[in-house]
Amino acid sequence: MANSPSGDSVTERIVRILETFSADRTLQTVADIGRRSGLPSSTAHRQVEALVEAGLLERDDDARVRLGMRLWELALRGSAALRLRQAAMPFMERVQAAIREHTQLAVLEQDEALFLERLSSPDSGANITRIAGRLPLHASSSGLVLLAYGGVELQERVLTGPLARLAPETITDAAALRRTLADVRRRGFVVAPGSIEAVSTGVAVPIRDASGEVIAALSVVLPREAPTAAALEELQAAAAGIRSALAADRR
Amino acid sequence: MANSPSGDSVTERIVRILETFSADRTLQTVADIGRRSGLPSSTAHRQVEALVEAGLLERDDDARVRLGMRLWELALRGSAALRLRQAAMPFMERVQAAIREHTQLAVLEQDEALFLERLSSPDSGANITRIAGRLPLHASSSGLVLLAYGGVELQERVLTGPLARLAPETITDAAALRRTLADVRRRGFVVAPGSIEAVSTGVAVPIRDASGEVIAALSVVLPREAPTAAALEELQAAAAGIRSALAADRR
Repeated sequence: MANSPSGDSVTERIVRILETFSADRTLQTVADIGRRSGLPSSTAHRQVEALVEAGLLERDDDARVRLGMRLWELALRGSAALRLRQAAMPFMERVQAAIREHTQLAVLEQDEALFLERLSSPDSGANITRIAGRLPLHASSSGLVLLAYGGVELQERVLTGPLARLAPETITDAAALRRTLADVRRRGFVVAPGSIEAVSTGVAVPIRDASGEVIAALSVVLPREAPTAAALEELQAAAAGIRSALAADRR
Repeated sequence: MANSPSGDSVTERIVRILETFSADRTLQTVADIGRRSGLPSSTAHRQVEALVEAGLLERDDDARVRLGMRLWELALRGSAALRLRQAAMPFMERVQAAIREHTQLAVLEQDEALFLERLSSPDSGANITRIAGRLPLHASSSGLVLLAYGGVELQERVLTGPLARLAPETITDAAALRRTLADVRRRGFVVAPGSIEAVSTGVAVPIRDASGEVIAALSVVLPREAPTAAALEELQAAAAGIRSALAADRR
């Protein structure tokens, strides 16, 4: 497959190289990229060179490599993620201004919750999530909403898989998780205290598109013992506003 | 070059495919992608298939193709753009709350101003910029700041190239542009009325990193005849705040 005429192995190589970058690892040597991607050193060098030429990676003055602005531009310019995020932003800002805790937008991606946006103020409490970061579906409030509305196949896959305990109150029992998901669908929201961090409570609601399909989750992270009613009210108003904005955007 | 062992031609093909997507074109058939990318139809089909398999593109129910969430994640997760944008966000929100007009963050990319973020409120006026969109350096207030601090080589390239008139007051004369850039460096900001749209005035300041290097521009877009003093004051306070946040982020 090394140099298949269809080029698919090159596509995989590029993904493996991009995967070596993270929030804690924004600058790497080519040797580090080679080692972390598991690619042969000469292959990694050649492919990094091609990506730098295309602007998808950039070299700094010390010949270390970082993700390119051109990659950022190409990934965002025509993306559904950006469109959703732009529709959600004014409403997220309103939630954040009212509640003054972390406000987050997440979508389902490869059986995890992928966070598209997070608004915080300096006085917001603890929060494990990061933009472009992921959390397990069963352990985060956003994930529980995405899982509850995510379809039977996804639910069975998660319910029959390992349910890692990330905090004292993470739901790790499949039957209990099944009841929680039914509860989320019936009530239309979730309050998940100590599910992903002992010190915080996640509150999340579904965001629906114009057709009524759940396409994202909107959440706030509150201190563990904070009252949740005001946050829930703000989230539900925001979700309705985002749905209208998406419908208007479509017209 | 079609299937070169180094894979660089595949990298170029991928860029050409990603380039066919835009804010106005988020869903395309593979035939459209082939035509717009200029790739042979069979090549486009195979390469799109490889990108879909890798999650960088996604297919909808009608077999149309869109940019994948996985691409978004890989492009953002470890990017300097995200880091800068996160450092800037709280300060941009403050500017936006005070001025209530579009507030924007731009960086220099391939001799243009690339916009990383834009905050707006429903009552903000006209604005041509888009997130992940670009504007010419000589015609936008952000671009004038980036050009003024962008180094002699860049300046000569732009000053000796065509200076397109995008609005009645765009600076299209090289000598006048040179004077404007000197003025930006002396005063530390630019006020550009009617430069990119006749109905608006751009006000922009440089954002410096901890080392003092200009790495971005922060701007607001005001109605053409609005007073600019308050906006300028907010922008300068925000730029100082972002510089401190970037320094703290680095430690």
